[in-house]
Amino acid sequence: MKALVCSDRGVSLDELPTPEPALGEAVVAVRAAGICNTDLELARGYMHFRGVLGHEVFGRVVEMRPQDEPFGRPLAAHDLAGRRVVMEINCACGRCLTCRHGGRNHCPTRTVLGILGRDGGLAEYVRIPMENLHIVPDSIPDEYAVFIEPLAAALHAFDEAPLRPGDRVCLLGDGKLGLLIGLALAARRGDLGHAVAVGHHRTNLDILAAAGLDVQLENSFSTNNYDVVIEATGRPAGLARATQLVRPRGTIILKSTYAGEANVDLAPIVINEIKLIGSRCGDFGRAIDVLSKGVLNPSPLISARYPLADAEKAFAYAATPGVMKVLITP
Amino acid sequence: MKALVCSDRGVSLDELPTPEPALGEAVVAVRAAGICNTDLELARGYMHFRGVLGHEVFGRVVEMRPQDEPFGRPLAAHDLAGRRVVMEINCACGRCLTCRHGGRNHCPTRTVLGILGRDGGLAEYVRIPMENLHIVPDSIPDEYAVFIEPLAAALHAFDEAPLRPGDRVCLLGDGKLGLLIGLALAARRGDLGHAVAVGHHRTNLDILAAAGLDVQLENSFSTNNYDVVIEATGRPAGLARATQLVRPRGTIILKSTYAGEANVDLAPIVINEIKLIGSRCGDFGRAIDVLSKGVLNPSPLISARYPLADAEKAFAYAATPGVMKVLITP
Repeated sequence: MKALVCSDRGVSLDELPTPEPALGEAVVAVRAAGICNTDLELARGYMHFRGVLGHEVFGRVVEMRPQDEPFGRPLAAHDLAGRRVVMEINCACGRCLTCRHGGRNHCPTRTVLGILGRDGGLAEYVRIPMENLHIVPDSIPDEYAVFIEPLAAALHAFDEAPLRPGDRVCLLGDGKLGLLIGLALAARRGDLGHAVAVGHHRTNLDILAAAGLDVQLENSFSTNNYDVVIEATGRPAGLARATQLVRPRGTIILKSTYAGEANVDLAPIVINEIKLIGSRCGDFGRAIDVLSKGVLNPSPLISARYPLADAEKAFAYAATPGVMKVLITP
Repeated sequence: MKALVCSDRGVSLDELPTPEPALGEAVVAVRAAGICNTDLELARGYMHFRGVLGHEVFGRVVEMRPQDEPFGRPLAAHDLAGRRVVMEINCACGRCLTCRHGGRNHCPTRTVLGILGRDGGLAEYVRIPMENLHIVPDSIPDEYAVFIEPLAAALHAFDEAPLRPGDRVCLLGDGKLGLLIGLALAARRGDLGHAVAVGHHRTNLDILAAAGLDVQLENSFSTNNYDVVIEATGRPAGLARATQLVRPRGTIILKSTYAGEANVDLAPIVINEIKLIGSRCGDFGRAIDVLSKGVLNPSPLISARYPLADAEKAFAYAATPGVMKVLITP
């Protein structure tokens, strides 16, 4: 099969054997997959990943190898056969203390789809533990289903720092993840004191403006004292900027991951007693619910569609500043 | 009067006019003052401070200029005249939204004793708003009273991240502030699952061991997965070390302030969804209560005593690795 591979030679479309399911796994024929900023960072050395890229994956189950006593969620083989599915990216052992206390996304021996020790879904086929699969309701079109993984991550931003009525909220970053967070913010803006998205790309910000959010270009933005700042710039400078914008004793939600270190003056975090909360993967069920109810519409976020045969071109295009979601289809 | 001054020429004992109280202020004759790690960092350029150093100050009220309608706490002139006092270091406007909502320590126009826009107490006399004064009960000796300010800061470490019974807690740093936090931890170790202090100085750690805390030299320490890590190393490398030690979804309490930036890989904060909480000044009343009840004994933390005339020597000695609290007396 064809697959987009991250190797010492860079990112290239290679011919690989079609994957076979291990015990407890399914093989999914990929119908649509998204390129995420994390993929671009992986290509720059983040996580030192080598293998098939892609962790925003939608497809159809074509093969399974169920185990007699499945750990995890009880989706049985007859439920899954032939179904339209998306897949959680953290593949956990299910047995350790972390897993058994509900921390599967933090299992210390986990693999992560297309990110850590496991081939991803920018390919014709991908194998994944059956327990990681979620059935996609027919009300969610194929292209929208690709957004379930990043939308779950976007909605998770507020799990450890719930927004309170009246809060003044600033979203930093108008990239792929930033826009999904922005759409989620727009959906509950009536409840908030003020919500603004700040970025560098007028066309991206326009999407959030159309959804009802206040938007500002970064170079003309100067207010501060926000209760909550969501840092989704994907850049090392983002945290320093966030510390300027948040009020004393306020909260910064940190969503950006990238290769390399940030040079940060940590003193404002101590002096202003800021809470900084790292946030990664979220609840797929909630994201499916939000999409199937039409609470938000991800279609304006699709910048381009490429066939898998042109995945190298697609990857280069996805790295262009201001480009949003690039979808790969068979 | 003599005063230890931080200027472009470095830190020197200078002759200055004796301060006069502004409206609402008192002048305190300093009986004992401590040198803090923050003072050493101020001398290295932190906060770009120029003026008299010293914010751990104990003395006796010798002059006052009360205002007719005092803002803040209701300590009247007749309560304070001639009394033994310590002083909160944040001098707030008392009128702004932040102050009126209980955030006086974060008043945007505040001055800070010996740190920001206000001369400190490594001097014969210091002036300070009367509302910043706390009367020291006779049960607390002069030398112990110097520890009220740093102890308040130490105890404040847990205000925004309360320790829970059973928590595994790791304290990083065996310097001046680290030891006070360690003594506070030791006082409630029975309640915790495990509490360990990690540092570089065997003699300092011995103080915590004597108080009943587990201690480890940093170069032989390798366990991790702590629920809470308190970063009090005073060094830029401390945060990276803390991210190695904390469990996924655990809490890092950040106490260190220093001149310059830290080079930090922020990815573990996002990937492991760590909460990072900056913590600065604390409640003087609680610290006074703890000291007057003898819950902890700061005397082993006193490394040396110098008269003010030898303050330059004292300052140099305080910067020696492993040296703890250096006290300055008249």
